[in-house]
Amino acid sequence: MTLPNGLTQEAAGQAAARAYELDRRHVFHSWSAQKALTPMVITAAQGCYVWDGAGHRLLDFSSQLVNTNIGHQHPKVIAAIQEQAAKLCTVAPQHANDARSEAARLIAERTPGELNRVFFTNGGAEAVEHAVRMARLHTGRYKVLSRYRSYHGGTETAVNLTGDPRRWPSDHGNAGTVHFFGPFLYRSQFHASTEAEECERALAHLEQTILFEGPQTIAAIVLESIPGTAGIMVPPPGYLAGVRELCDRHGIVFIADEVMAGFGRTGKWFAIEHAPGVVPDLITFAKGVNSGYVPLGGVAISPDIAATFDDRPYPGGLTYSGHPLATAAAVATITAMAEERIVENAAEIGARVLGPGLHELARRHPSIGEVRGTGVFWALELVRDRATREPLAPYGGTSPAMTEVVAAAKEAGLLLFVNFNRLHVVPPCVIGESEAKEGLAILDQVLSLADKHTV
Amino acid sequence: MTLPNGLTQEAAGQAAARAYELDRRHVFHSWSAQKALTPMVITAAQGCYVWDGAGHRLLDFSSQLVNTNIGHQHPKVIAAIQEQAAKLCTVAPQHANDARSEAARLIAERTPGELNRVFFTNGGAEAVEHAVRMARLHTGRYKVLSRYRSYHGGTETAVNLTGDPRRWPSDHGNAGTVHFFGPFLYRSQFHASTEAEECERALAHLEQTILFEGPQTIAAIVLESIPGTAGIMVPPPGYLAGVRELCDRHGIVFIADEVMAGFGRTGKWFAIEHAPGVVPDLITFAKGVNSGYVPLGGVAISPDIAATFDDRPYPGGLTYSGHPLATAAAVATITAMAEERIVENAAEIGARVLGPGLHELARRHPSIGEVRGTGVFWALELVRDRATREPLAPYGGTSPAMTEVVAAAKEAGLLLFVNFNRLHVVPPCVIGESEAKEGLAILDQVLSLADKHTV
Ligand SMILES: Cc1ncc(COP(=O)(O)O)c(C=O)c1O
Ligand SMILES: Cc1ncc(COP(=O)(O)O)c(C=O)c1O
Repeated sequence: MTLPNGLTQEAAGQAAARAYELDRRHVFHSWSAQKALTPMVITAAQGCYVWDGAGHRLLDFSSQLVNTNIGHQHPKVIAAIQEQAAKLCTVAPQHANDARSEAARLIAERTPGELNRVFFTNGGAEAVEHAVRMARLHTGRYKVLSRYRSYHGGTETAVNLTGDPRRWPSDHGNAGTVHFFGPFLYRSQFHASTEAEECERALAHLEQTILFEGPQTIAAIVLESIPGTAGIMVPPPGYLAGVRELCDRHGIVFIADEVMAGFGRTGKWFAIEHAPGVVPDLITFAKGVNSGYVPLGGVAISPDIAATFDDRPYPGGLTYSGHPLATAAAVATITAMAEERIVENAAEIGARVLGPGLHELARRHPSIGEVRGTGVFWALELVRDRATREPLAPYGGTSPAMTEVVAAAKEAGLLLFVNFNRLHVVPPCVIGESEAKEGLAILDQVLSLADKHTV
Repeated sequence: MTLPNGLTQEAAGQAAARAYELDRRHVFHSWSAQKALTPMVITAAQGCYVWDGAGHRLLDFSSQLVNTNIGHQHPKVIAAIQEQAAKLCTVAPQHANDARSEAARLIAERTPGELNRVFFTNGGAEAVEHAVRMARLHTGRYKVLSRYRSYHGGTETAVNLTGDPRRWPSDHGNAGTVHFFGPFLYRSQFHASTEAEECERALAHLEQTILFEGPQTIAAIVLESIPGTAGIMVPPPGYLAGVRELCDRHGIVFIADEVMAGFGRTGKWFAIEHAPGVVPDLITFAKGVNSGYVPLGGVAISPDIAATFDDRPYPGGLTYSGHPLATAAAVATITAMAEERIVENAAEIGARVLGPGLHELARRHPSIGEVRGTGVFWALELVRDRATREPLAPYGGTSPAMTEVVAAAKEAGLLLFVNFNRLHVVPPCVIGESEAKEGLAILDQVLSLADKHTV
């Protein structure tokens, strides 16, 4: 048997055994207790599939960390990386470079409004760090508001903005961050019973929070346009426009974090486009911009905020800002996504296959409390009890039931993104109908295990 | 004329004009006021040279941001990137991968002591952020000490640790950072007149700082093994051993920041090896690990600190931790550096050509106040007056004299790294004798301009 990268399974298997052994000896992993880890070795990948060390093919409904929007090993992006590597791998940020310039142009062309200046970083957390710094210096204020149930990255400011338990060990109450509740009808904080009511009350809550924190102390509100890891809670119509209006009224910078939701994931280039006419002041991006083939992130900047640093130095930077290899991968990714109508594919598969398919599963599986999403960005909220909505794993934790379901899916050839009591269905944007249906069929099978844990 | 990447100068010139125009329209640059920027377009690079948009060849005595230790476009690293791109660009951090495992092994093999576990990041700032988090959780303490005259990165914690003026706009006094003075005989804070005296007094000062801050409040001391951007102040013999001893005595984690000094720059794999027997608890690295061909950084971790996260999750991570393309570039870089004795070359060129050559210049140019360094890591401290040591540009600023010297060097085909009143001579570690001499000759010429500004 030969893998898509040309390796025989035997060679790949030997390499995988060695990779595993060295990993356990030398690699320290993200977000984990290290001792009990038994990571899966990935030896090859193509399109919507990855291969493990034993040669098993898995349908990648995780897009790794929701980043391979263009699918694995897209030939045009690979070729662009190889060509740029031969031409020029790296230059310092103070110089200029054609790959960087062209990536900035392609991104500016797609951002809403006039967010036409791009500051490049290596990833999402750095993008958030720099966006916050820009907002603080632009406003002369310090505090930054973000929502509970959110994720913004692993560096100190980004993790303190994060609204999930991963913040706690780094939260010393001194990062200038304040959390509020966002709209989430299924688990409403606002005792609402309709989306319209949830929207109105969530905005009133945000307004009250702003008033009691002191508008003139608040530099920015950071919001994922559609919160991702925290549960893919599509905001009700009017919410983001309401946030924009509150920001305008109080001179607060609106930062839309599109690290996970941007670049096709929701069936639009940016998720904020689902709220037509709403233009944030800063957009943070990473992941989908080049599908993570080379580390890249960045901030798209409004003319107003950019002008703050026309004559006054922007006090931030990094060695690899606007890295030629990373930005060349972005140029190829964005170009291929446009040529091959990959964003449109994400929208269509979501509307025609994944959405209906998941709702259909919900009709038959009592463990599904809610189906939420758009494009190739879907969450299944698994519950023990549809009436009480008691989650199948506690907030911030896991449970034998969840572990069982995820392991069974993997055994059956499906890789999922999991968070607490939720399964996220987040395949590459290039996914075809038959692959989507293959994944839905495996989900159907393993959700029966979850059903056994319902009351 | 054809450039090393095969482009004709005419094609490169047209691409450069377009790159420049788009850069000015769409790219937001690090650490700069944006309006007056006139960045040089780099169209090609090879070994110790880069080419600008007009086809001029420049000898790269900056290594960009002191990162291309292996030189530009090393064929073995290019080939490895191209091969890995064809094989597998990206996997999520929770999985395992052969390139990542092998890079971790090669790094662990070279780190001093038993720093055999590696957490990978995208760059240096993130490495510092995560090292500080590890130290805080390992000790249960919060405060982190670092020195004035240092640079640790652009994210919030990293920039607050930084001991140069770039910290100020982000310093709100709440980051848990405290600065002390390190040894720097030429501008001694300690009224010392010998290196031994400077060493002894700097250690006494650090000890006093620890005692007055409260040892039990201090999680870590972060120190560049040889401070880079801040002036390449090689610490006097005994200083780093003294810091290690103070850390041991007070249960403080010793973080050696080797982002700039590591991977051959000083003529050793790690600069800390210049202090034999001194083993820090954590080493942060980036840049030289793969010469910046693909963004990569990381933290090498002692068994003790790693054990803290054996059973308790490490609360930090990033999407591209242990990125296959970035780590494959590290494997190729480290392997080529070993095969081609590139670290040894850096040591030899420093000892035989650069060091003697720069000292010889100092004998003839009154504008050189001091020559400091080792390997391919040298600083010229330019002064208006050797007696008073008045710098040729104020601390934190620039001056017409400095601008004139740097522009003349560029005009004559030499790219330098500049900070305030200092010229840094930091070519790739692969530099040959004739290239080093070519650079020294241009320096000789342009230092005459600096001399005119002396009293
Ligand atoms: C919305 C959001 N913001 C920021 C980040 C952090 O990005 P990175 O992991 O590249 O630092 C993520 C990562 O998942 C994210 O989903
Ligand atoms: C000593 C040191 N630490 C950290 C950094 C930050 O690294 P990066 O720019 O990759 O974030 C640098 C960058 O110059 C550095 O020299």
